Amino acid sequence: MTGKTNKACIEMAHGGGGRTMDRLITDIFRKHLDNEYLSQANDGALLPKASGRLVMATDGHVISPLFFPGGNIGSLAIHGTVNDVAMMGATPLYISASFILEEGFPLEDLEEIVRSMGDAARQANVSVVTGDTKVVEKGKGDGVFISTTGVGVIEDGLAIGGDKAVPGQAILINGTVGDHGVAILSKRENLEFETEIVSDSAALNGLVSDMLAAAPSISVLRDPTRGGLAATLNEIAGQSGVGMLIEEEKIPLKPAVSGACELLGLDPLNIANEGKLVCICNAEDADKLLSVMHAHPLGKEASMIGAVTQDPNKMVRMTTMFGGTRMIDWLAGEQLPRIC
Amino acid sequence: MTGKTNKACIEMAHGGGGRTMDRLITDIFRKHLDNEYLSQANDGALLPKASGRLVMATDGHVISPLFFPGGNIGSLAIHGTVNDVAMMGATPLYISASFILEEGFPLEDLEEIVRSMGDAARQANVSVVTGDTKVVEKGKGDGVFISTTGVGVIEDGLAIGGDKAVPGQAILINGTVGDHGVAILSKRENLEFETEIVSDSAALNGLVSDMLAAAPSISVLRDPTRGGLAATLNEIAGQSGVGMLIEEEKIPLKPAVSGACELLGLDPLNIANEGKLVCICNAEDADKLLSVMHAHPLGKEASMIGAVTQDPNKMVRMTTMFGGTRMIDWLAGEQLPRIC
Repeated sequence: MTGKTNKACIEMAHGGGGRTMDRLITDIFRKHLDNEYLSQANDGALLPKASGRLVMATDGHVISPLFFPGGNIGSLAIHGTVNDVAMMGATPLYISASFILEEGFPLEDLEEIVRSMGDAARQANVSVVTGDTKVVEKGKGDGVFISTTGVGVIEDGLAIGGDKAVPGQAILINGTVGDHGVAILSKRENLEFETEIVSDSAALNGLVSDMLAAAPSISVLRDPTRGGLAATLNEIAGQSGVGMLIEEEKIPLKPAVSGACELLGLDPLNIANEGKLVCICNAEDADKLLSVMHAHPLGKEASMIGAVTQDPNKMVRMTTMFGGTRMIDWLAGEQLPRIC
Repeated sequence: MTGKTNKACIEMAHGGGGRTMDRLITDIFRKHLDNEYLSQANDGALLPKASGRLVMATDGHVISPLFFPGGNIGSLAIHGTVNDVAMMGATPLYISASFILEEGFPLEDLEEIVRSMGDAARQANVSVVTGDTKVVEKGKGDGVFISTTGVGVIEDGLAIGGDKAVPGQAILINGTVGDHGVAILSKRENLEFETEIVSDSAALNGLVSDMLAAAPSISVLRDPTRGGLAATLNEIAGQSGVGMLIEEEKIPLKPAVSGACELLGLDPLNIANEGKLVCICNAEDADKLLSVMHAHPLGKEASMIGAVTQDPNKMVRMTTMFGGTRMIDWLAGEQLPRIC
């Protein structure tokens, strides 16, 4: 991050299981992530009994660059996994973190990343309870990769899943699309826009909790990360055996993101988000949910973007600004590699 | 693995969240790991209520080479995490797996790795319930890294931890030391020995379950992986504030491993194991536990290697074959990088 010379770096010994690794764990990991479980210092964490059904989700994070407007790989690794657990309707409780570090990576940058993880975990009300660190030789990794796994509990009575959408239901989103992907791309390509585009990376469990309190019958929650809104809607349509019709003008989009996408030839519907959720609910709950979302800092720009339709071909279609309708497909391949 | 040309390889699109990635998940991951939880196909897995306190452990696997005598990174990733959960005295139930794949890695090798994971999971009676796949550009990774996280449950009444050893207790091990590290090193350096040295990589949860049934009062269980037996005993001595005195002649060691270590200038006590456990128990339970261990396929060569002592300096000492006593320190740094 800084131009200092001779700064301390990760060495192979930091992954060796000996004293050097022990110091790294104490000086960086315990310092910023500490909690009663992590400090047990055993092979794993001993946790209390859980009160409900369990939910478990995992995410590898390989984002490049590691630091970006709105966050870094550390905060992202917490947000991504907290959100995956929350999208099941569960309350995320515990996070494990596996670090794969490249020899030569500055310790100062690692500490900044771990500090952000600690802050993000505290804000999301989860604890990093156990971890692991491995070191690979220079040229066999890329700075830092972090795989996080989250465990949460889900209350009885909730039944949320990608296969639960039915025709007639409403499709909601909590805010603007494409912010994360465009922020990463701008940083990567050194693009400068008039307005800085900042990642939306955030933990959505608080918002989800408010939404479920208002409408426990929500059918689907999913965060449109890799592949963007287009991939997420197509996944759900496929799992539920339904179609969808969305309206372009209802999809929140920042002018700066829209401009950047036009410039770069990208479709904002294919671009990753890290603080967004799609919610599919009964039509009669839509207004109530929108008010709850609008009252939350992460849902101020929430919008009903369309409806679930009956369609044996499971197509996602969009009414465009010009009044026509086009099919929204997911991409076969990769538009923006290493976006998360 | 094979010399075939033009074989299909991992492309950046395999990590893109689109159709190509979807095919990879279906054709390789679901095919070999399938179970009722993985097939839910949501952002995470919805699991039943757990009957006891939870245990959570995580391990990143960056072993090189990926394929070695006695296993590959896939089986190792299951064994390593199952063992971490089992060392808490818990029954491992669920595993998550995060794959970081390097562009250009042969799909055929990936399938072999995932097949081994599936076999290892079934043998250890655990399910891989959720996963994630990321792809990094050629030269930014090293084939395959796998981070696995395990969740298990622990019965009431058990109190196992590295801080629970007390003077007078017995120190047991379930078999020979150094096999895994020497097997990896031999393969890496293309060394040929008269007898092939095979990794001891194995899931220890079955053995632990038998041991706990016989002696629920076991104080410490730990698997001597990175840093070997020396690091593990020193860790426990430090956590419990005790000393240890072990006897060199009681430590099981394969002649081939001993010979290889001599040749390579390595101390087998510093070398990683992947199917070994250290057990610290009340002296009066030692014989009973040794019989239980001897009756299990993974404990045939179990041995009582020493005792916990009172020592304010928390030193681990060893009576050598020649009758002297030497201090067993853990290494400051790294003897064998990327051993697990």
